[in-house]
Amino acid sequence: MAELILHEYRASGNCYKIRLTAALLGLPLERREYDILKGETRTPGFLAGVNANGRIPVLQIGESLLPESNAACFYLADGSPLVPAERFDRADMLRWMFWEQYNHEPNVATIRFWLAFVGEANLTDLQRAQIPAKQAAGEAALKLMDEHIDGRDWFVGGSATLADIALYAYTHVAEEGGGFRLADYPNLEAWLGRVAALPSYVAIDS
Amino acid sequence: MAELILHEYRASGNCYKIRLTAALLGLPLERREYDILKGETRTPGFLAGVNANGRIPVLQIGESLLPESNAACFYLADGSPLVPAERFDRADMLRWMFWEQYNHEPNVATIRFWLAFVGEANLTDLQRAQIPAKQAAGEAALKLMDEHIDGRDWFVGGSATLADIALYAYTHVAEEGGGFRLADYPNLEAWLGRVAALPSYVAIDS
Repeated sequence: MAELILHEYRASGNCYKIRLTAALLGLPLERREYDILKGETRTPGFLAGVNANGRIPVLQIGESLLPESNAACFYLADGSPLVPAERFDRADMLRWMFWEQYNHEPNVATIRFWLAFVGEANLTDLQRAQIPAKQAAGEAALKLMDEHIDGRDWFVGGSATLADIALYAYTHVAEEGGGFRLADYPNLEAWLGRVAALPSYVAIDS
Repeated sequence: MAELILHEYRASGNCYKIRLTAALLGLPLERREYDILKGETRTPGFLAGVNANGRIPVLQIGESLLPESNAACFYLADGSPLVPAERFDRADMLRWMFWEQYNHEPNVATIRFWLAFVGEANLTDLQRAQIPAKQAAGEAALKLMDEHIDGRDWFVGGSATLADIALYAYTHVAEEGGGFRLADYPNLEAWLGRVAALPSYVAIDS
């Protein structure tokens, strides 16, 4: 595989997914940090040279650039045991990854980002008005996960896949936003422990 | 392949993606309609028997249920020319599909749904307050697509892939929401024409 460079913001769960996938697969990553709170991913240089969408993470593979966290994880893990070989399970893994970006991240991750990183005093009125709905949708997402993982070890099939990595990233730090209590979701807590015990696991702050 | 049943709401672009993928691949689909405006995907029976997330589309394959439109398209097209055989291109296709669900659908599709289906008079204050931001983010998404497709025939590689299908679904009906003008994006209009000219193409109202 060509040299891998991760354009990232360390505390972002979306960036962490890629680091965790690479670590579990034993792939070395060079890392380049951008401070999203200072607008470093919206500069003309970043937009022209890294991602026209103005967002991290972007995985660079040689000269090729790949935005979108879950697509980058798929690139790294394609052909490995982290992507199921069976057709339905492979699509079902993607189902959880799409669900994560649509139903989980815009709620659980946004609450954390707004309250723990931006700070409630710095939010716009429109952002502040959205908090109750995002809090409720985040709780619904955690509840749906908790019910799915009840009686299962992993989200898809019999071993860890990218679905577990994608869902773990923002779930395990959900309490940083202040509103979510993981103790309310005991099945989820047990699964978080299984992910953290995977060989070669790395923490989000590593 | 086992019998395929699509649980859907016909006018939803997310459901249409699956019908278009199946049509391009020559796969027959049985269709079951739910009126989302009447809450038919939030009934106890739907939540317990079709999708605990209360949403369409769900692709049923024999007895197995697969929510999330782009995951269902991947299941149908896995191993076909609609999914690139080359590793980077396969991940880059997923990159556009994740981008579609995060940056395009919540803006372009939501504006259409709120204004053309729910009706502005029936929106909540919080929904109405979000329209300007969603309109701006939708324009940014269409502009990013228009710039990417400039000089290219397809979003990834040299032929149509699921990236084109996923992006086509809500782009080609973007004007129904009232705020977007596709004539502002000439490269995008030319690409919409290429998708509509694919052999076995079906329209959203078919």
